[in-house]
Amino acid sequence: MSGALAALDRRADFPGLLTADGQPWHYLDTAATAQKPRAVIDAMARAMGEDYATVHRGVYARSANMTLAFEAARRRVAGFIGAGGAEEIVFVRGATEGINLVAQSWGGANLQAGDRILLSQLEHHSNIVPWQMAAERAGAQIDVVPLTEDSRIDVEAMAAMITPAHKMVALAHVSNVLGSTLDVARAAEIAHSVGALLLVDGCQAVPRVPVDVGALGCDFYVFSGHKLYGPTGIGVLWGRKELLDAMPPYQGGGSMIDRVTFAKTTYAPAPTRFEAGTPAIVEAVALAAAVDYVEGIGLSAIHAHEAALVAQARDALSQINSVRLLGPEDSAGIISFEVQGVHPHDVGTILDEEGVAIRAGHHCAQPLMDFLSVPATARASFGIYSDESDIAALVRGIERVRKIFAK
Amino acid sequence: MSGALAALDRRADFPGLLTADGQPWHYLDTAATAQKPRAVIDAMARAMGEDYATVHRGVYARSANMTLAFEAARRRVAGFIGAGGAEEIVFVRGATEGINLVAQSWGGANLQAGDRILLSQLEHHSNIVPWQMAAERAGAQIDVVPLTEDSRIDVEAMAAMITPAHKMVALAHVSNVLGSTLDVARAAEIAHSVGALLLVDGCQAVPRVPVDVGALGCDFYVFSGHKLYGPTGIGVLWGRKELLDAMPPYQGGGSMIDRVTFAKTTYAPAPTRFEAGTPAIVEAVALAAAVDYVEGIGLSAIHAHEAALVAQARDALSQINSVRLLGPEDSAGIISFEVQGVHPHDVGTILDEEGVAIRAGHHCAQPLMDFLSVPATARASFGIYSDESDIAALVRGIERVRKIFAK
Repeated sequence: MSGALAALDRRADFPGLLTADGQPWHYLDTAATAQKPRAVIDAMARAMGEDYATVHRGVYARSANMTLAFEAARRRVAGFIGAGGAEEIVFVRGATEGINLVAQSWGGANLQAGDRILLSQLEHHSNIVPWQMAAERAGAQIDVVPLTEDSRIDVEAMAAMITPAHKMVALAHVSNVLGSTLDVARAAEIAHSVGALLLVDGCQAVPRVPVDVGALGCDFYVFSGHKLYGPTGIGVLWGRKELLDAMPPYQGGGSMIDRVTFAKTTYAPAPTRFEAGTPAIVEAVALAAAVDYVEGIGLSAIHAHEAALVAQARDALSQINSVRLLGPEDSAGIISFEVQGVHPHDVGTILDEEGVAIRAGHHCAQPLMDFLSVPATARASFGIYSDESDIAALVRGIERVRKIFAK
Repeated sequence: MSGALAALDRRADFPGLLTADGQPWHYLDTAATAQKPRAVIDAMARAMGEDYATVHRGVYARSANMTLAFEAARRRVAGFIGAGGAEEIVFVRGATEGINLVAQSWGGANLQAGDRILLSQLEHHSNIVPWQMAAERAGAQIDVVPLTEDSRIDVEAMAAMITPAHKMVALAHVSNVLGSTLDVARAAEIAHSVGALLLVDGCQAVPRVPVDVGALGCDFYVFSGHKLYGPTGIGVLWGRKELLDAMPPYQGGGSMIDRVTFAKTTYAPAPTRFEAGTPAIVEAVALAAAVDYVEGIGLSAIHAHEAALVAQARDALSQINSVRLLGPEDSAGIISFEVQGVHPHDVGTILDEEGVAIRAGHHCAQPLMDFLSVPATARASFGIYSDESDIAALVRGIERVRKIFAK
């Protein structure tokens, strides 16, 4: 066992990694959602139990304490991704809502007929549909950056096609299907060269590579808590302060206001302006616990661990004749593949019988499937807890798929 | 101790009802957010642990099981409020998002310049600001139903002022400040008499009175999970099927689509159309556990319990000379009051020192504060776990407030 693979050894922290009859479960669907460490589950239970109270409104100590914990979670997240300050962190339901918020609030105030938006061929639906809706409202158009032969966003093609009519560029940091990684700094440079903003979908990047939004030079960055070993129901929109401050509200309600009358309502500054209603209190506290857990290991170590797993898995899978690997060699923790002559769903179903969980489908990236000329792919994705036994189980399972379909 | 008060005896189910040093905590802020029973906390932990997987997308058994649990939660909620079917239940972050969803999606498709929206003087900001935003977009106007002398929404005044220009009426079922209860069936009749729809904010009603949306005759109904002894981060929008089916999407992303291409995207039917991205999976499962818990006691029993507490508390508080009670005699579990000459925040702070948690402020209802001619009120609100000891502690605390301010 290589040093990089042995180094993490964190399976025991994750109660979800056992099957119903107590056997090891080979969970290779971390790109869909990550299993939760005990520390996160316990933080959630404590926040819902002996620490529970609302935030921002209570005059009693427990509520003041929960408010401190909630705002500490915001600072924790800000520090984790290198934000300029906690006021640049908006808590949302997930990355999808973060993108919708920008598309609607920023887009509603800034997009006009004739403007253009630049996306790429490999985007997740969550980074396509909100822009289609915003474009339709504004009378704007969408252009699509092509991919390189090894399925990366072709940033030099992007440089050639961008124009001053482009007001927003929205790209995935790491592809959820292929694991291909964007050179965000270069993309930001290109976007800014024509005065466009760059929004980065960081769902797959934040759990897999060190992210510093300041160094990356982008303007908005979004990610989901549940893919970062945290709870469902919470995600993060980071935006540069001056951009958030200039954006109109998204949802109206309690907390986001300054003063409400039927004649005129005025709004609180960002990020409060964008957090109408009682927020996802216990989820924010548990997300901070997830950040603590992940930083306790370190993103560089996690990245090295997943890179070693990817190399080993690609090597093992490439030795199976009927397997075709998709995506680049150096993918960040995610491998898509085909077993020739077998539909990915059948691959997934047979693997499940072997205690191996992969995902099969279009992965909410139908335009990428069109580009790859496949209806679907099988996808194995790694996390902190993944190890060589998962790869061995995957290979055994695929051998069984081949035997069944060779009959 | 009266039978009604003794009957529930549920304090031991709630780990949040102890102070940090293990003493009973007199939590009278349930209208802000309810404490969670152990059954809900355990359901959440299980869903995040040994049962954890994503929904709707996985080809493996654990994900299929979680999908079943998620959709069972939807059916559980539908049955709980008498919906026509599970497809009428949209999971949202909370009531605030539910109202924003209708205001933007239904409002965007249906409100036109010259149309009017009818609200009431006692609405929570979450049932005002989304309509102000929708009205501004459409060029529509807002009218305000006044209150009766005992601070109920004056439905007969509503009948007199409604016109065919009114397309939407949005009213609170139970006031979050005063506990006054709307005759929803009568309000629906009035709204429908001019062809308007009725949206009901049920945040304070669903945990306090039996709700059957079919019998009430309204068109949309919203509530929050965390006020129903469930988790933060989830709420419910109920809408009549034909209305939801006719509404355009709200947020774009994964799951809510039928087919995505850059040329044209088509959408899934309701409720999926309104649930873009990975939903609040573990929150939905825990919300179902909260519904189980509440129905295990029964809303009629809870209502009787809270009515008895309100009667006893109003009686006790009315014997304190300097206390002025606001709102109707028969309020649903919520009492607002003033201690003459003392700011509500000071009342709240001193009560906190006595282990009594109330809320003091405008309760996200500034227009109601304007109507009551106060900057703020003190509010005590009851729940399943409240008992006579809480009322006794409240009275002791107010006596201390009086002593301190009499000096």
